[in-house]
Amino acid sequence: MLSKQKIKFLKSLQIKKNRLSEQLFFVEGAKSVKELLASDWPMAGLAATEAFLQECQTFLGLRPKLEVFPATEAQLVQAGTFASNKAGIAWAPIPKRPTELPTAPWLLALDDIRDPGNLGTLLRIADWYGFQQIICSPTTAELYNPKVLHASMGSFTRVTVWYQDLANFLPKLQRPVHGAYLDGDNVHELSFSEQGVLLMGNEANGISPALASLVTQKVHIPQFGGAESLNVAAATAVICDNLRRQLRA
Amino acid sequence: MLSKQKIKFLKSLQIKKNRLSEQLFFVEGAKSVKELLASDWPMAGLAATEAFLQECQTFLGLRPKLEVFPATEAQLVQAGTFASNKAGIAWAPIPKRPTELPTAPWLLALDDIRDPGNLGTLLRIADWYGFQQIICSPTTAELYNPKVLHASMGSFTRVTVWYQDLANFLPKLQRPVHGAYLDGDNVHELSFSEQGVLLMGNEANGISPALASLVTQKVHIPQFGGAESLNVAAATAVICDNLRRQLRA
Repeated sequence: MLSKQKIKFLKSLQIKKNRLSEQLFFVEGAKSVKELLASDWPMAGLAATEAFLQECQTFLGLRPKLEVFPATEAQLVQAGTFASNKAGIAWAPIPKRPTELPTAPWLLALDDIRDPGNLGTLLRIADWYGFQQIICSPTTAELYNPKVLHASMGSFTRVTVWYQDLANFLPKLQRPVHGAYLDGDNVHELSFSEQGVLLMGNEANGISPALASLVTQKVHIPQFGGAESLNVAAATAVICDNLRRQLRA
Repeated sequence: MLSKQKIKFLKSLQIKKNRLSEQLFFVEGAKSVKELLASDWPMAGLAATEAFLQECQTFLGLRPKLEVFPATEAQLVQAGTFASNKAGIAWAPIPKRPTELPTAPWLLALDDIRDPGNLGTLLRIADWYGFQQIICSPTTAELYNPKVLHASMGSFTRVTVWYQDLANFLPKLQRPVHGAYLDGDNVHELSFSEQGVLLMGNEANGISPALASLVTQKVHIPQFGGAESLNVAAATAVICDNLRRQLRA
């Protein structure tokens, strides 16, 4: 069973400082835990209800050395951030940050996305559209924040994320940089090059002035009604969709 | 100044039951309060910092009868739901629900969108794409929930929202119904008719089985990576964008 000590340990991972010192993160709920089990990521432990363990037998068979702790729903709620959890909580080592340059034809770059829910949703959208290499500014929300992982709905297992100073890093990539602006060329009429970077800016302020000179193509989503802007996740989905109409992944 | 009694009254409007009995709702923060002031909606009162009142002088000149209560930031935080509020809180009568049928060429119908943040984001996306008539199932989040209004970023002032049983209401509209499904015809290759309804389903379960027979065109957004689905707001934005490429508002 899940000991009080283990519950205390899992709770401690809700705090960034502890995640960094332990070099561990956790995910909770059926969807995220299953995605982690099904991935080839190393795992450190799993606390789960008997029913969920039954449900995951096939996956668990592939991870014979994984430490498994049967737990009650009440214990999972105590240890995690969910108001209810009929499934489990899994914890895993934080992967090493990539050191090589990204190689995918199209990359997503995120400048100062502060809201963890937005970052998670962006990972999910990027993964849907086959943008699996993502470069975040150091001020973007932390990838292993439980809210990011939850909103990503398992996509965090399929994307590689760099945290880099964008002003220094983007020029190294030697690609055209498409930046989303409220003015710019109509995304419906744009010819996308074979490779590039799609740069999306902060929720309230857009792309930082310091990065504006790196943008080689300003992209604008045409507006047909009264709203002043789209939220960053919707805007990213729309631009990715327009890009993928032209260039298959 | 804002009395203790007024603060208590504003706090009471955070609860749906009280909004219904008072027939009043409130919005908070600079963006929403300004959008409400700039709209032609009736208003019942405004509590705001001196700085914000200065900033809004032009709008306030157009509403000479509006009751205005100077307030401190601390009072605004006490009365509202925000962790900080340098601007104000405005309250207004809940408009009468529309009784006539919607007439816009394209309508958005929302089946059981439970999350208030999602509903607000959907109003903003719909407003951006010129879908200003929206039909919600009775189980969809309540329009005057502070989280809905906040996420809509002022778009609630420009959209008209029906709450109707969709199984009874959609047939009355006598239009093609495009429903978003994980299978269906590729949205990139679709010909949209001049008028119709775009039906989006619940966050976890999609469109209810009871409505499936009303869908005349299943629409699918092509996927290029590993994510199982897009979130409902991103999917709505993408379909609206594809529709507006063909049919201008």
